[in-house]
Amino acid sequence: MTGHSRLGPGREFDAVRALLGAWGESAVGIGDDGALLDVPAGARLVVSTDSTVEDVHFRREWLEPDEIGWRATMAALSDLAAMGAAPLGMLLALTVPGSWRTALDGIARGIGAAAARTGTPIVGGDLSGGERLALSITVLGQTKHPLTRAGARPGDTLYLTGALGAPGAALAAWQRGARPRAEDRARFARPEARIAAGRWFVAHGAHAAVDVSDGLAGDLAHLAAASAVRCVLRLDAIPCVPGVAVLDAVASGEEYELLVASPALDTAAFAAAHDGLALTAVGAVEAPDEAGVGESVAEQRGRRVALPAAHDHFAAR
Amino acid sequence: MTGHSRLGPGREFDAVRALLGAWGESAVGIGDDGALLDVPAGARLVVSTDSTVEDVHFRREWLEPDEIGWRATMAALSDLAAMGAAPLGMLLALTVPGSWRTALDGIARGIGAAAARTGTPIVGGDLSGGERLALSITVLGQTKHPLTRAGARPGDTLYLTGALGAPGAALAAWQRGARPRAEDRARFARPEARIAAGRWFVAHGAHAAVDVSDGLAGDLAHLAAASAVRCVLRLDAIPCVPGVAVLDAVASGEEYELLVASPALDTAAFAAAHDGLALTAVGAVEAPDEAGVGESVAEQRGRRVALPAAHDHFAAR
Repeated sequence: MTGHSRLGPGREFDAVRALLGAWGESAVGIGDDGALLDVPAGARLVVSTDSTVEDVHFRREWLEPDEIGWRATMAALSDLAAMGAAPLGMLLALTVPGSWRTALDGIARGIGAAAARTGTPIVGGDLSGGERLALSITVLGQTKHPLTRAGARPGDTLYLTGALGAPGAALAAWQRGARPRAEDRARFARPEARIAAGRWFVAHGAHAAVDVSDGLAGDLAHLAAASAVRCVLRLDAIPCVPGVAVLDAVASGEEYELLVASPALDTAAFAAAHDGLALTAVGAVEAPDEAGVGESVAEQRGRRVALPAAHDHFAAR
Repeated sequence: MTGHSRLGPGREFDAVRALLGAWGESAVGIGDDGALLDVPAGARLVVSTDSTVEDVHFRREWLEPDEIGWRATMAALSDLAAMGAAPLGMLLALTVPGSWRTALDGIARGIGAAAARTGTPIVGGDLSGGERLALSITVLGQTKHPLTRAGARPGDTLYLTGALGAPGAALAAWQRGARPRAEDRARFARPEARIAAGRWFVAHGAHAAVDVSDGLAGDLAHLAAASAVRCVLRLDAIPCVPGVAVLDAVASGEEYELLVASPALDTAAFAAAHDGLALTAVGAVEAPDEAGVGESVAEQRGRRVALPAAHDHFAAR
């Protein structure tokens, strides 16, 4: 833990010391009121905050503590991936009820593993008591050419990384009291932020990107609205995990794949550069109607179909 | 709300739209996965996260919604003040139970007022449901010459801004079921982050600083430990609000004054530059013992006295 300011007394600081032990080399310079970072010359700073709350985003009996830490961290880092940014650091605001205190080591291990996997230093944090476990994670990254939601242009192709539907299938199984299939559970419990993919999209001239953490249908609507374009989704083209219907897959939240609007991309080259991760053309970007208002529509077997409503934590409660 | 990406549908987005309305010009570029900021050339980025949780940091009946928002925001910005940084932006992770939904406008107004007061753009956020109101606020700032806890040197003088004890007195009154004095309550409900003071300390060659949000006694111990120096606090010199004993004042948490280790400073010039805010010499920095371990000690009327234990949210629960 060289490089940390020496911490003073207090039980909160003992807990923080234990976290630093779990994080090892991933924790940098914790102990001051603020952490210091350097942004490369010419690059822009990208920042985002994402919260994972017990009984809103997961239930305790679904996940191991290290999976909770991993998942919350990757969910936050996914916003950097969607902007095409390289991670600079992350800060954690942890609310830890007494009943979770013994799980804190496991949660910290999961956070540390996700930080190490993506090369993201843990540069600060804050620990409070509370009634429910909550992890609010702020991520910082940098890029010279950020991808935004507003950049999609008529003529672009819509591309999607990976395959959809596994987290939704796992959630549906849990909610009906069943055990999810192992592969669905793993995709819910151990998502990967598509950091390298986001960098690749920037390098290959993509115009816009979002992650599909609110479900592809909802996030496509956001992209269409922000870019003021018409997005046409071809449901037949969307890769789904086995056994999941496409209309469930596009409504499945808690996904961390990227949806990208771009001039034509070499999908084989993408897969080769990302350990076989699929990149699939799933639709097209067109000019909006005369009013210039963006909208998203879907087609299946040549016919227009309605898209499911956006995934919405507030409505779900 | 010009400049925000157009938001898509969903109840969560309606709530976010209402917040953006309350924040007006203080909210910048919200709507993408991440927000974009620029750090001036040659400056370092300073980041910090701070959480305010219902029943841990305040009780609902103590504060108006706008005071909760103001206080949480200033508490977070205080970490930038302690580093001598100028604010670049802030991100909010709000956990809002159903019973607080109608108070959200007021909370947002308080956040917006504190952001406007300090010139801090609100660049992003995240809204979840939950059992207790929690505001996790990440602040970003920049400075070419950060103040850290580890910079204090033997020969420095210890200086303190303002006067201590009011928030502790307000808390003590509430906890015994009484009504706090109006001036004590105001200092608890409407603290000021000492941003301009922190910038002044940087400009005048200070070596180290902390805010005293965990109580002067506790934060002095952290500064001594981090700097590996002996800090001698002169209790007789510490400005306290009327009616508060000095040993209560140095244990009083929820204070947002700055403690600074510096070569001699012109306290009159400081007060003149900060609307009469006091700057008081309250102690001295000495070399540590032979083992080189930092420690803090206190003197009162020429005699050594023990300092109270650090304020510790975890112990308090």
